[in-house]
Formats: sequence, structure tokens, C-alpha cells
Amino acid sequence: MNNQTWWKWGDPDKSFHLNSYPKLRNFLEHTWNKKLIDDFRPTFIFEKIAKETFSVNQFKDIFPNLKLNQFSNTKNERLKFALGKSYFDVIRVFTDDVVSAPDFVLSPNTEGEVYYILQQCEIHGISVITFSGGSNVTGAFNHKKQGVTCTLNLRKLNRLLEIDTVSNTATFEAGIMGPELEKLLNEKGFTLGHFPQSFEYSALGGWIATRSAGQESGLYGKIEDMVLGLTVVAPRGIITNEDYPKHASGIDIHPLFMGSEGTLGVITKAKVKISTIPKKYKWIVAIFKDFNMGTKAVQELVQAGVHPAICRLSDPMETKMLSFFSRSENTGIKKIIQDFYKKRLKSQGFGEPSILMLRFAIKNEADEAIVKMAKKIIKTFDSKLLPSNISADWESNRFSLPYLRDTLIEHRVLIDTFETVAYWKNLTPLYNSVSVALKATSNFFDKGGILFCHISHSYETGASLYFTIIAPQELDNEVAQWKKIKSVVSEAIITNNGAISHHHGVGKDHKKWYLQKLGIESRLLLQAIKAHLDPKDILNPGSLFDEVKEIKQD
Amino acid sequence: MNNQTWWKWGDPDKSFHLNSYPKLRNFLEHTWNKKLIDDFRPTFIFEKIAKETFSVNQFKDIFPNLKLNQFSNTKNERLKFALGKSYFDVIRVFTDDVVSAPDFVLSPNTEGEVYYILQQCEIHGISVITFSGGSNVTGAFNHKKQGVTCTLNLRKLNRLLEIDTVSNTATFEAGIMGPELEKLLNEKGFTLGHFPQSFEYSALGGWIATRSAGQESGLYGKIEDMVLGLTVVAPRGIITNEDYPKHASGIDIHPLFMGSEGTLGVITKAKVKISTIPKKYKWIVAIFKDFNMGTKAVQELVQAGVHPAICRLSDPMETKMLSFFSRSENTGIKKIIQDFYKKRLKSQGFGEPSILMLRFAIKNEADEAIVKMAKKIIKTFDSKLLPSNISADWESNRFSLPYLRDTLIEHRVLIDTFETVAYWKNLTPLYNSVSVALKATSNFFDKGGILFCHISHSYETGASLYFTIIAPQELDNEVAQWKKIKSVVSEAIITNNGAISHHHGVGKDHKKWYLQKLGIESRLLLQAIKAHLDPKDILNPGSLFDEVKEIKQD
Repeated sequence: MNNQTWWKWGDPDKSFHLNSYPKLRNFLEHTWNKKLIDDFRPTFIFEKIAKETFSVNQFKDIFPNLKLNQFSNTKNERLKFALGKSYFDVIRVFTDDVVSAPDFVLSPNTEGEVYYILQQCEIHGISVITFSGGSNVTGAFNHKKQGVTCTLNLRKLNRLLEIDTVSNTATFEAGIMGPELEKLLNEKGFTLGHFPQSFEYSALGGWIATRSAGQESGLYGKIEDMVLGLTVVAPRGIITNEDYPKHASGIDIHPLFMGSEGTLGVITKAKVKISTIPKKYKWIVAIFKDFNMGTKAVQELVQAGVHPAICRLSDPMETKMLSFFSRSENTGIKKIIQDFYKKRLKSQGFGEPSILMLRFAIKNEADEAIVKMAKKIIKTFDSKLLPSNISADWESNRFSLPYLRDTLIEHRVLIDTFETVAYWKNLTPLYNSVSVALKATSNFFDKGGILFCHISHSYETGASLYFTIIAPQELDNEVAQWKKIKSVVSEAIITNNGAISHHHGVGKDHKKWYLQKLGIESRLLLQAIKAHLDPKDILNPGSLFDEVKEIKQD
Repeated sequence: MNNQTWWKWGDPDKSFHLNSYPKLRNFLEHTWNKKLIDDFRPTFIFEKIAKETFSVNQFKDIFPNLKLNQFSNTKNERLKFALGKSYFDVIRVFTDDVVSAPDFVLSPNTEGEVYYILQQCEIHGISVITFSGGSNVTGAFNHKKQGVTCTLNLRKLNRLLEIDTVSNTATFEAGIMGPELEKLLNEKGFTLGHFPQSFEYSALGGWIATRSAGQESGLYGKIEDMVLGLTVVAPRGIITNEDYPKHASGIDIHPLFMGSEGTLGVITKAKVKISTIPKKYKWIVAIFKDFNMGTKAVQELVQAGVHPAICRLSDPMETKMLSFFSRSENTGIKKIIQDFYKKRLKSQGFGEPSILMLRFAIKNEADEAIVKMAKKIIKTFDSKLLPSNISADWESNRFSLPYLRDTLIEHRVLIDTFETVAYWKNLTPLYNSVSVALKATSNFFDKGGILFCHISHSYETGASLYFTIIAPQELDNEVAQWKKIKSVVSEAIITNNGAISHHHGVGKDHKKWYLQKLGIESRLLLQAIKAHLDPKDILNPGSLFDEVKEIKQD
């Protein structure tokens, strides 16, 4: 990767120019009445990063037990670990904004080395930021430049330690990346079933530390539902316990580390529930007259015990946008819907439909019965079933939208996502609140901003909403523009009974709203736990509930 | 209730003499070759309890904000709160063993009063034991007589605060008892689905504090799976947070209080997931040639996605015993099995069968398909389906076995249960280990001891085992006899990868084995949490991870 593309998502060969998305290009140019030009390039913030802030000799002095090849202090390397993959991360690369790179990077090979590193960092007052996949989108790696900071790169802790094909469990080191983990399980006929959009570039430990949800959480659960046991290395010691399928042997402390985002310890091992690979999948694709009707249908489905692996209900605007994300002119969702539109649906009230895509894992005849029942329920909501191959388009792109994000930024387009979760009772007001809040600011819809949303994960008690916004960038004001929108949407979410995150986490970007909702006694409790496990406050200082020596996102 | 029956389980009208269980009586008398006589009666340990250790005036001084009718210091009342409902609890009543009654009992009406009581107790160094249903079977209420101890009776905190029939959630005060909770939900067409054997005499807060499992956990989950939010009153403050169906807003602290057994705070409110009441139920009853074959079938069922509400696989000895628990001669499990036996099954290898009872909640056609699939799977394990009405016998007795326990004690019979959970891989060795361990002691099988077991709760990754033992009491050595057996079985369980409890909890009776399995760093962490929430160590001192100023069960 060269200097110009290091900030991009994923594999350069999977990235396409905006010309490869002719429908999207046309739509945006038409909407905004201007040509999109790819003239936006990262400034070389390399120059802003001091050449060397932590020397090889310092490394040798403080970490005599590590090998030199486990250490890195070059500008290039440090920059790779300085940022996650959010719009805010990327836009700062383009706008010469300040980025705090770590002073050095260490790559432990063993759990023992992790403990050793924490011990030495504690003695020498070095802050530690844990990094595995690096795909975080909430500013997890941002830090205040204060003292010396080390990034702990867990990528080498990537082994499958045990697979128990009788009990359907597997134990991995936490730095293992999604595809490698699935490959190892698939070889034995199993899957973890955790497929976040970041799947290809995220790791097990990161999923757990952020309470991640995969696209198939309807069937497999969120990552916290899959974890049976953890080993966590804290400055205070190595926390490990015997694990059981379920138990009543006192308090289960594992949940404490799920969502702890590197503040309480480094997750080094995890035992997870695994499942046999489904024989096949079946899709149901339906359209509803509006989002509200579709929402009611999804609620009825999950409350009736229908739990498709994937359940995505797009609002009318997203339904329209989905077809633009396809790289070809003549296939995809739009074409099929158009065929329906033109022939008969528009006159029947489906002029601006809301599309629902359900994917069912079929292992047996009961699963087939579930699919039938789902269709029956869906029909009662005044809907139309569409050919299920429509979903192939979504499926082939399920991990590729982050590439398009980068392409759009190069064309001076702001694109970001916001996700939340709420009880069914609160879902529609929450959904409405975001557009109302954006309307109340003069900077979004007025300037051509596009907002759309889908229900991404559904539960008996509620569902998550996943909003996307697209807008022309305000030139020379890109960072402030994003901060403003982020603030407006986040405010709307938390004041309308939504969680500040359903599956991305808190990081630094959500901290303000997270703290508004965290009860004071809970915060004091979490701080007490932190003080016990990490008394010198070296782990991701200033994160989550941690003392706010107010962190400015500069 | 008079002095002789206050120690008994439940409603005196539901208690029957051993003569009402002729099959059981005959079986035991035949096995032990002696007549069972109901000549065993509690000694009046009332006399051992000092008349008054905490006066009304002391109450008025320390708790001026409470009303006199919220206070009790009479012998009678204190004794009622001194014990749970385990064999160990009851046998001490019979044998003049020392029981530590609390010095007084307080009954708060509000969460605010709970906080007030904890504040005053902290100032005055009074220990607090939380009590709601009182059906604990692990010695939770035992305490070392040291300083002044108050029992906090939560029974008046019993209101339904909110029911959300859109999101399927309900918020209750934690002292509400099982039947009242179900009644309130049933009126709206809902159920919590939590039916432990103690259902009629246990409360929501107790279920949560002990990580309880109901008989229908296969469908509804364990109590910790149902909790969406909690309010917990600790000496340090009132812990309350906004709750969501699922989230990634940092660490979820609610799990910390599940299984905390009164050591970290008093659970005063809980928001739980509720479900619509099933339209009907279907039973499948099958027999297998042995327990191992049945175990394999249950494993295949749950791993194939079949989750019956109830799933009980009894080993051959329990299969035989089940029919003895019926009060009539000519109905019940035994009769039906016998009909099968005599006619054809014995010659086919079902001489000592293992019975499986499955209850499915039927809400829709997919549930019907699940039942069909279950039958198909079961048949592949060389089994026979029995008439499903056989289960009526079990069902009508599902909450009544504790009554029989008391009756047996009056006839000088030791009866106790042990429960554990393990991964499937470890389940058969764990099952075998208990009988092996009991064989190795000269005091159990040699003296006519009877051991039987069933799988009570099943998961994709493992299952729980529920052992029952019945033996003639060793006269004048009853407590020591129980302690010996308890120790032998518990040792076998934890050295064979079983949890010391799947759903009863730790209490004081399991503390020794719980601590053997608790990692040292976890213990230190839990102690740090305790020190923060309860700095003066007034809540259930000496429980769980707490400093062991070694508690002798005297």
C-alpha cells in the first residue's frame, strides 16, 4: 500500500472508482446539480508526526524480554495504528487535521508477553491502546497526546486453541481475524456465524471488546451471546475462570469485559459457541407500502418466534438507494423493483415501498415451516413478495460498502452511518426523530443531504436502526460539518430512548452521549473496577467511564 | 402454622402423609427391610434463641423513619427468617442443632426505605440478609452470629410497575412472588415463563440473585436471559441505568448482580422480557434403552434447534422412582410403562429404560413442525414413543415434591438433591462420577442409599444434571451424615468439570467448592467491587467471594 491509499478500507483490488457506480453517480449529480470530481486527496500528515518519539534503545531498556522484530517506531507503522476506519478518521487524513499516532507499536506472540508488556508499561507510565483488526469506527484509537503511548498489536495471537465438536465450542486467541476464524471452523463443518460488515478486517477480540453484532445475529446472536469464557490480561493480573454452558455459581464476570473497549484489560482468549453450517439458505424478499407497516411486520415475525439469520427492512429512501450501490446498470434490486413498479405496483400504493430482506438458514423441515409461516405473516401486512433473487445483489455486496465510502470521500462526499437500538414501543418515534432533528438544522437537507435507514437486527423486545447519511462536503469545513451532524443525530437518538450504539461501540466519538446516559453510581462502580484492574490507568486512558480529563477531538 | 410445622414447605393442606404414597412406602420398606415410622419431630429450638437481642427501643433509635409495624423481633418471626428450605436447614430443626436467627426483621415498603435501612445499618454496623421468598436451598440465610444481624424482608415490594405489551416487557418490584407475578401477566395474555420447582414460594429478586432456572428454561431461558434492566440499592448508592433490548453502549453492569446473592446490593426492581401465553402444549414421551442413548438424543435435539419448553431425561433409576411419587396405586408413569414392559418391551432391551419427557409450547404451525422433527430424531436413537398422557402425572406434581421431602424426613429418611451443568463432552463422565464417588464411601449404597438423576435443562453446548439421593437416616448422626454425602458429591462434581450449581446458587453450603473453582484474580476483582459498593461489609458478610473469616456450619 502506498502513502495515498494506506488510509483506505481493505484490499485495493476490491475498490472501484465512482464511474463503476453509474447509477449512484447519476443520482447524486442530478440531486445536487453538480459534477462529482475525484480531486480530493489526503494531505501528507506523515510530516506532522515526529520522526521518532520512542527509540530502539528505549525499547531495549524497557522491554528486554522482547525481540526487536516485535517493535516498530517508524512513521509509517505508527500512522497505520493511529486511526480506525470511520468517516471522521478518514476525513482528518484529508484535511490535515491533527492525528495522534502512538509512539511505538508492540506485537506480542503470547499471552505471557501481553502480561509482560502491561507490567513494563505500568512501571514506566506508558499508555496502552489495544489493536487487533483496526476497523473500529467510533474513534477507539484516538488518544490525547500525553506521555508515551504504545499500541498493542494483537494480530499474532491468532491461533485456534481447541475445537470441541461434541459440545459445539471453540477456543481462539483473540487476535484472530474473521476470515481465518471462519476458515478454521468451516474445515470442521462449523461456523461462528458472526459476520459484521467489517468481517474481513476485524478480529474476535475486537468484536467482544465492542459488543459487536454480525449481519446474521438474528440466528446466532450478538457476540456477547456467543462467548462462553474469556481470558483477560490486566495490569493487576491474568483473569481466567472455568466456564460452563450456563451456571449459578455466583457472579459471571465475563460480561464485564464485553464492551470494555480496552479499558479493563486485554482480551487474549475467548471460548465461543459454534454451530454447524446450514445446509442451505432461503430468502424472502417483500415490499411494504411504508416503513411503518414493514416495522410492524418485523415485530410480529420476531415476536412469533421467527428468527431469520438476516432481517433487513429498509425505509423507502434506502430501498431506492440500494439499487444505486450496484456497479452494473442492468441488474440488481432497482431493476426488479422497477419491473414490478411499472407493471402494477405504483397504482396499488407501492410507489415508495419499503423493502424487507430475510435470509433463513435451512437445516431441517422445521426451518422450512418457519419460512412458510414468515410468508404468511408478511402477507397480512398488505405487502407484496418479490422474487427472492433480488437479495443476491445485496449479498454480493455485503462486505463491500466501506470501499464505496472511500471512493465517495475522494469525490468530496460526506457519508457516514449511525446505529442505535430501542424497544418496539419507542422505535417509530426514534426513527422519526432523526430526520426531524436534521431538518431543524440548516445544514443538512437544505444542502442536499440524503438520509436513509434500515432495521438491521430484531429482537422480541425491540430492534436496531441503522441510519446512513450522504451529503456534499462543505469545502474547507469538512471536520466541523461532520461533528455538527454527528452531534445532531446522536442527541436525537439518546433523547428518544435509543442506545448510543447497538453494535459499533462507544470509542471516543460517542463518549459524550454515553456518559449522559450512564447512571452516576454505575460510573463510579466502573471506575472502581478500573482502579482495581488498572491502578495506574494505563489502559486506553480517558475512555468510557474513565475520568474525563476532558478529551477534545482536535 | 403451629410450632411443629413452621419449618415445612408451603401450604399445609397440600402436604400428605407417607401413607398417601403407598408405592413409595412399599418400595423403601422393601428395599431397606424395615418399617418406616413417622416418629421424628422437630425439637423446640425456639428455646435456644434468646428472647430478645434487639429491642423496640433500639429500633426506634436507629430507624426513626420506619413504622413499628415494619419491625419484628419476636422469637417466632426471627425463626421464620433463620432458615431456607434445604434438607440441611430442616434436619437442623429436628436435631437441636444451632441455628442463627437474625436479631430482628425489617419490612420496607419502598425502594427509598431499603436505601434508608442500608444507610442506618451501615452507620450502626448491622449486617443485612436479604429475604424474599425464603425457599433457598443452599444455606443463603445461614450466618455467623457476630454482631447484630437484620433480615430485610422484601415481600412488600411486590408491585407491577409497568407492562409494555408492544415491546413484551414488564417491570416489577423484586419482592413479588411467582404466582402473583404470573397472575398479573396472565391477565394481559403474557407469561414470564419462569417456573422453578419453588415457583409458588419464591420471588423475582431471589431468582435473579441466585441465577435461577425454571422448568421451562428450554423455551424461555434462565432468569439471567430474561432480565433487561435492574435497580440495585447498595450502601454506596442506588444503581440504575437506562436499559435497551441489546446494546453496545459500553459495559452492561446488570450481569454483575445476577448471582450476587445479596452481597453487592439489594435488587429492588427488575425489567424482564415477557412472552405471549402459548395456545397449547404438546408432550412427547419416549423411553431409551439406557441413559447414555437418551443423552445423545437430547444433545442431537437441542443442537438441531429443537428447544422444547421442558426437556427431562431421567436415568433408569429415576424412571423407576417417578412412578412411586404418585399418590395413587393405579395411575401414573409406572402403570403405563408396566403395560408396555409386560407386553413387549422387556424382551426388546427396555428392561431398565430411561424416560424422556418433552413439553412443547405450540403457538403456530412451525412449532408443530418442530414436534414432528423431534419425534423423528428421537426414533433414530433406538427408542419407543409412549402415550404422551404419561406426562400428566409429572405435570400435576411439578411443584409438589418439596412436600414429600418433609414427609420423608418425619419418617427418618434422608432426601436431598444436587444439581450441576457441564459441556456435552463432559456430561457422561460427570454423571458416572457421582455414583462412583458414592460407591467409594462406605456410608451410602452400603446402607441402602438410592441415587437417581435427570437431565433438567439442555443447551447447544451442554446440559444440567439433577441428582436425587434417598437413604435411611443415621440416627443421632443426621447432620454429619448429610455433610459427608454433600461433600462427596460436590467434590465429584467439581473435579469432573461440573459447575457447583446450575440453578440453586452458592449460598453457604457450596461456598467451599465455589471458591476452589473461582480464579484468584476474579475473586480479588469481586472483592474490590464489594469494597466499593458495600465498604463496611454489611451485606450478607462472608458470602461468595467475600473474605472468609472461616464460616463453620455449626
